[in-house]
Amino acid sequence: MSELVGNLLVAQSGGPTSVINASLAGVIQEAGRHECIEEIYGGANGIFGILNEELIDINDERARTIEGLRHTPAAALGTCRYKIDFKKKPEKAAQDMDRLFEVFQAHNIRYFAYIGGNDSQDTSHKIHEEARKRGYELRVIGVPKTIDNDLPHTDNCPGYGSVIKYNATTVMEVGFDVGSMATDDGSCCIIEVMGRSAGWIAAGTVLAKRGNPANPPHIILLPELPFEPEKFLAKVKETVAAYKYCVVVVGEGIKDTAGQEVGADKTRLDSFGHPVLAGAAEELKELVQGKLKTKTRTVLLGYTQRAAAHCASLTDANNAFATGEAAVRAAIAGESGYMVKIVREIQPDGTVKWSTGLQPLADIANVEHFIPREWISEDGYMPNEKFVAYAQPLIEGEVRYPIESGLPKYVVLEKTRVEKKLPPRVA
Amino acid sequence: MSELVGNLLVAQSGGPTSVINASLAGVIQEAGRHECIEEIYGGANGIFGILNEELIDINDERARTIEGLRHTPAAALGTCRYKIDFKKKPEKAAQDMDRLFEVFQAHNIRYFAYIGGNDSQDTSHKIHEEARKRGYELRVIGVPKTIDNDLPHTDNCPGYGSVIKYNATTVMEVGFDVGSMATDDGSCCIIEVMGRSAGWIAAGTVLAKRGNPANPPHIILLPELPFEPEKFLAKVKETVAAYKYCVVVVGEGIKDTAGQEVGADKTRLDSFGHPVLAGAAEELKELVQGKLKTKTRTVLLGYTQRAAAHCASLTDANNAFATGEAAVRAAIAGESGYMVKIVREIQPDGTVKWSTGLQPLADIANVEHFIPREWISEDGYMPNEKFVAYAQPLIEGEVRYPIESGLPKYVVLEKTRVEKKLPPRVA
Repeated sequence: MSELVGNLLVAQSGGPTSVINASLAGVIQEAGRHECIEEIYGGANGIFGILNEELIDINDERARTIEGLRHTPAAALGTCRYKIDFKKKPEKAAQDMDRLFEVFQAHNIRYFAYIGGNDSQDTSHKIHEEARKRGYELRVIGVPKTIDNDLPHTDNCPGYGSVIKYNATTVMEVGFDVGSMATDDGSCCIIEVMGRSAGWIAAGTVLAKRGNPANPPHIILLPELPFEPEKFLAKVKETVAAYKYCVVVVGEGIKDTAGQEVGADKTRLDSFGHPVLAGAAEELKELVQGKLKTKTRTVLLGYTQRAAAHCASLTDANNAFATGEAAVRAAIAGESGYMVKIVREIQPDGTVKWSTGLQPLADIANVEHFIPREWISEDGYMPNEKFVAYAQPLIEGEVRYPIESGLPKYVVLEKTRVEKKLPPRVA
Repeated sequence: MSELVGNLLVAQSGGPTSVINASLAGVIQEAGRHECIEEIYGGANGIFGILNEELIDINDERARTIEGLRHTPAAALGTCRYKIDFKKKPEKAAQDMDRLFEVFQAHNIRYFAYIGGNDSQDTSHKIHEEARKRGYELRVIGVPKTIDNDLPHTDNCPGYGSVIKYNATTVMEVGFDVGSMATDDGSCCIIEVMGRSAGWIAAGTVLAKRGNPANPPHIILLPELPFEPEKFLAKVKETVAAYKYCVVVVGEGIKDTAGQEVGADKTRLDSFGHPVLAGAAEELKELVQGKLKTKTRTVLLGYTQRAAAHCASLTDANNAFATGEAAVRAAIAGESGYMVKIVREIQPDGTVKWSTGLQPLADIANVEHFIPREWISEDGYMPNEKFVAYAQPLIEGEVRYPIESGLPKYVVLEKTRVEKKLPPRVA
């Protein structure tokens, strides 16, 4: 392998997480150790910003700020949901690719690290192939990121451990609250969490039980299994009879037996003629209150769960950082067209040793990874001990962060722009 | 004042908070220091449990557990929403009062500390008056508790500092997240918080701005001021134009100019014929998406905010503990018919010195305390520097808590029951 001298470009894509900036810090700090990398640039708002030649001069940032990225939530470079879509818009995609390589060439980009989920790994894969085709020497490495934990081949996805640590903490706390109010009247609390069509995030709240069946959550509704209202209501009734209250966690993407999303009621239109999306938790609340006459409250965690860096997992943050470092080391070693994956090795004493590996991007792009059926209880309402053994190590350890005036002190990049060398993009 | 020898009964009432157990610990630990208090009993589920003679033997609990109450959320004794209502149900109320004094007499209760909000202070007041009338020697002290911060005469209510510390942290984190995704398309995020008809909780999220007008939250909707849709939409539009995104915090109890709660749409019925309560945030989302075509997401924090002991304010927890201690000291000193209040004294160096005082329960019961208009910006969408000066000291300091398997380790009382001496209550 010959040494490739040039600049490195790193960018972030898709929904942010508590630890996506830890991966960014890993890329930047590792890149700083290698002389063949001359400049480190960040793409502002992912591919979208790169297409507009919006590059951030990372070497202009303070070292203290880069270190602070290890405990700062959200995407410090900015992120996007832009997709280079060769299937649906082949002409536009070809144009975008031309423009991308113009930008790469103009700024002598030879290393490209893209931090993101399924779509972003697909984009990285396409850029890697395109570089080969064009004979442009570029080393492309994908860095995994998604709270949904649905990337294949990696043990887990950076962001996931932190979201379930925060959600399990929250469900445990809400459980204490609702339990302390429980009287013979009975009550129900329904907490909706993210995860799209994968149930990993919902499943992770099982850790709040700490091994005690009486502890909340009492029911976890996973999108992997069809939602059956009568069976669910019977389970709520049984739980309220046993404990006087019932805490339900529901993954936002649950579907009924016909494959329709629960909470997306297309028969009810708002004043502007759009279908009212009540959300799964609200829909279930109506069901429980209506059929069982049990007082029900809902919680919709939304963005809070993926941004809750004040409750991030140190294991997750360290793995996120390590994937960023590993991406740069792989590229320096001459690799391209891979995603860094997290590897778990259980030690003789039962603790986990984490390391990283490489997986061809071709194996990753657009493949979704779901919870195996054998990790879920027979009745479908609770992940079992196999899932717990998998998830428990991911929430170990706490990320420490500075506090100012009673609030976490997160960092913000200066984002000095690199001088543009190209005419504006023709969109 | 003659020494009064007998037993102490402490109970918790209404919605729990992150620090209501710190007040309980204060009561218990202070009571343990006085020989005239022979036994310490806890009422299970507040007045409701006391009526059923459900008393918990606190001296049977481990000292370690009592200490752990200082960082444990929810009501460790159990709580209730039971009200002795002399106005609406005078006969039932008189019956309840008779039964209460039967229980007091049977267990030689001479000290009664009731930890709660407006309703509970009213109950304490009635019990105090009733004892005088009956010539039963009893010292009744109310301990303040409510996240809503709407009790009068006290500087603040234990529970409030912690809820706004957690909510400000959360709004800041969500702000980082939404801001990092902002592109020219613009986006909006609406976060609904508790507080009923008072805006104290919503207002507290102003601390997330850390003095920078560009920082979220950009708009805070307070129930103290009528909601005007057109004016609100103009403000959202202006914010999105300036920053590409807009974070809105809305107090659950906001009302329109006709005094109707926003989100309680009585014209839309669910499948069981009940009005659909979309909630304020969902209603505003429909409005923003419908009228401005701006992509909008919602967060409904619900019970999470009042249970989030993992992010509790040390100032708040210490004040909560101090009010518990002060209640017992006042009762020992011969006082009855008072609520402990928190007193703020600003030191020459600008720091705050906290202490407690006593206020007659007659001044407290059923009075609601709202945010002064002069603490809110002219346009009504942001608490001003006067509010910030008030709220900032309340979130200072972090409650430390033990961690086990990556989650906070909260305590649970054993709740050994005191032997019953009376026939069952005739309800």
